[in-house]
This record gives sequence, C-alpha cells and structure tokens, in this order.
Amino acid sequence: MALATSIDRATIEQIVRQIVFDSGMGAAERNGSAESELVVSISARHCHLTDEHVETLFGPGHTLTPMKDLYQDGFYAAEETVMVVGPRRRMLPSVRVLGPTRPYSQVELAFTDAISLGIGAPVRASGKIEGTPGCVLVGPAGVVELDQGVIRAERHVHMNFRDAARYGVKNGDRINLRVESSCAAVLEDLLVRADETSKLEVHLDTDEGNAADLENARRCELVKPT
Amino acid sequence: MALATSIDRATIEQIVRQIVFDSGMGAAERNGSAESELVVSISARHCHLTDEHVETLFGPGHTLTPMKDLYQDGFYAAEETVMVVGPRRRMLPSVRVLGPTRPYSQVELAFTDAISLGIGAPVRASGKIEGTPGCVLVGPAGVVELDQGVIRAERHVHMNFRDAARYGVKNGDRINLRVESSCAAVLEDLLVRADETSKLEVHLDTDEGNAADLENARRCELVKPT
Repeated sequence: MALATSIDRATIEQIVRQIVFDSGMGAAERNGSAESELVVSISARHCHLTDEHVETLFGPGHTLTPMKDLYQDGFYAAEETVMVVGPRRRMLPSVRVLGPTRPYSQVELAFTDAISLGIGAPVRASGKIEGTPGCVLVGPAGVVELDQGVIRAERHVHMNFRDAARYGVKNGDRINLRVESSCAAVLEDLLVRADETSKLEVHLDTDEGNAADLENARRCELVKPT
Repeated sequence: MALATSIDRATIEQIVRQIVFDSGMGAAERNGSAESELVVSISARHCHLTDEHVETLFGPGHTLTPMKDLYQDGFYAAEETVMVVGPRRRMLPSVRVLGPTRPYSQVELAFTDAISLGIGAPVRASGKIEGTPGCVLVGPAGVVELDQGVIRAERHVHMNFRDAARYGVKNGDRINLRVESSCAAVLEDLLVRADETSKLEVHLDTDEGNAADLENARRCELVKPT
C-alpha cells in the first residue's frame, strides 16, 4: 500500500484523485505485474460531451485538448470546462470535461453537488441516462440544453478478465470495497466491469471518497460478498 | 421503517435531515417505547458558539433565537448564521449556528465543505479541538478569528443506557451502521455516546449521508462489530 505521488490541491479538487493500494493478491499471483496494485480513483464532478456539443460550446471545428491522462488508457481530462446550470438558477461554474467525446453528453455529480445545484441526480451506470434530469451547459462559444444526462455515477470497478478470475467475479457481478481509515467504511455492491484490457481501478465519487477519508486510508481491499 | 415527514429543500440543505428507521429490536423489547425507533440525522455544516462570540458576531447583549428544535431535547438550530472564511479567502456564506451556546466555539464541516474552504479539517469528537485549524467567522455585527475549532465531527450514536444494554455496548464503545440503499454501505466505528437520557440517534455528516444515499434507504441498522 502506498499513496500516489502528491498532486497540487487545485488538481485534486478539479479532476480526479488516484490512490494506490496493495491489491491483497499474493506475491506468486502478482509476480510484478500491473495487476498487483489496486487503484482507487475519486472522480470529482465532470462531464462527457458529444462532438457536436463540443463545437456548440467551444466553437465550430473545436476539438478537446487533452490536459492530463487518466489511469485507463485512452481517457483524459481535457483543458475545457463548462458551467453547469440547474433549474433554480444555481450553477457550478467550472466542471471539467473528460475525453474522448462520446455518442451522448452526460454530467456526473456527487449528491452534494446535485443538492447544491438543485437537481435530483439518480444513481446510474454510465450511459444509462434515459429519463434522467437535464441541465444547461454554458461554454465560451455557446449554450447546450440537455434534456437528460445528469446522473450520479454508480460506483464500479474496472478490471481485466485475469483480475476478475482472481477475485472470483465476472463482468456485471457485484463486489464490496472496504476502506480502512479514520472513517472506515464498506462501500457495497460495486459493479464489476471486466474486459480484456482494463486496469484494476475502482471509481468512486467525492461523497464516497470523503465519507471514508479515502485519501488517508491505511488499507483498501475488494471483498467478494459472502 | 418509515421516512420522516418531508421537509422543504431549503431546510434539508441548511440544517439537518432526520430519517426514522425501525431499530430492529423485537416487539417485546420495544413495547411502544420511544427506543423502538432509530433516528439517523445528517447534520449539514454548522457551528457552535460561546456567549462572548455570539455578542461579538451579532451585537452586545444578543442571545441566540431558537428556530427549530433538534431531536435531542434542549438543542436547537438557531435563526442565526455566520459566514465562515478560510485561509485562501474562500468562504461558506451561510453556516447555521446551533444552540445552546458552549464553552468553546467550533465549526463542524464535511470534508467536501472543508476542501471547498481550503481547510484540512481533522476528524474529532465534538469538543476535542486542541490543535485543529482555525478560521474567521463573520457576522452582521463583527468578526471572530478562531485559532482552532474547525473539525469534521466523528460519526457517533447517542443512546440511553437501556438501549446500550440492548445493543450490548457501553459508553465509549464502537458500533457499525449498515445502510441498505441504492448506495449501500457500512459506516464503521461509530462512537457510542451513552447516558441516562439521550434518545437513540446516529449523527452523520452530509458526505456520509450522501455517500450512502441515506435519504432513500430501505433499511438502516446498528450492528455490533464481531
């Protein structure tokens, strides 16, 4: 178990905190491979955009500018941010855009964010946005009114099929995360998203990370429900 | 298990959410007594003030005006609010004062609040403020600079000695709270604060309540660690 290299507070608040733990797998199993580490990432509020919405918000022909790579290969935090406006004229002034673009636009908030914005964000797996509330996005070049797409992302864990086999789970199963800290907690029912290539990484939101004081955790482990 | 009567969103955000559950004790044990209910209260950020600080902030001779009784007898949310200013000129514009006054002033924040304020709030039991960070409080009549007193309140549960005996715990022990919801979680190591007269009530902060989606919980129970 080791904390990741420190990053400045602005980065912590804006994008994602990644904290690295021993995965609890034995030495024989890990054998120096990347699967030996359990990365727990706390995603601050952020949004995903379509190509079309990027152009509306940031100008014709605009494409996202990668600022910082995320842990999963191919994903990044972009330089771009948008203002998210709720139904009661409350707003979050600077919500980070994550890339690459997607076939749908989606805003992911913790409940604390959603309450401050006056929106009731339902808990959904990423992409399952049918019937969710909308909001208004404001960028430097324009405005997008989303009819739907505001969610609290369901807590989940990415892993490859080898990791899944070691934990005794398969894609779509549920697993628990136990955090040992001054605010110890078991976060139950993380959705297992297993595929060929993903790195072992839990995704939590800021409410979950803060509730469990994950940043100062002594130990963190995935535990298959009995 | 039953949700408490609904309260308007402004109240929810400002003060405290109280959610009522079946305590899980058998019918023979509860026998219609008040101890049959487990109340879980989510305290939003708030502060406690000394008499002297009330006068500095709100004017000479000023005393707190009770606005809403809290669940524990004798305690209330006051009409008064203060602005809390952090070290980086960030601020929380309206933090509720709880009464009655105390021998020390203390600001209780969730980590999400503390991060937005730029303060690292340590986890402490109420009153254990030695060596904690300070802040500036601004009221309509004056300003108070606190040298210390900014904390995240340690999660805890109030109960009377009869309840403690039923759960098999005593004052100072630890007990776990399991929340069954769409964001199910076990919050571990709640400090048991048992005395002659307290009502059975868990105190969480907004990060903890939001992480576990307590407001939509189907069931909530105190479980003695094995």
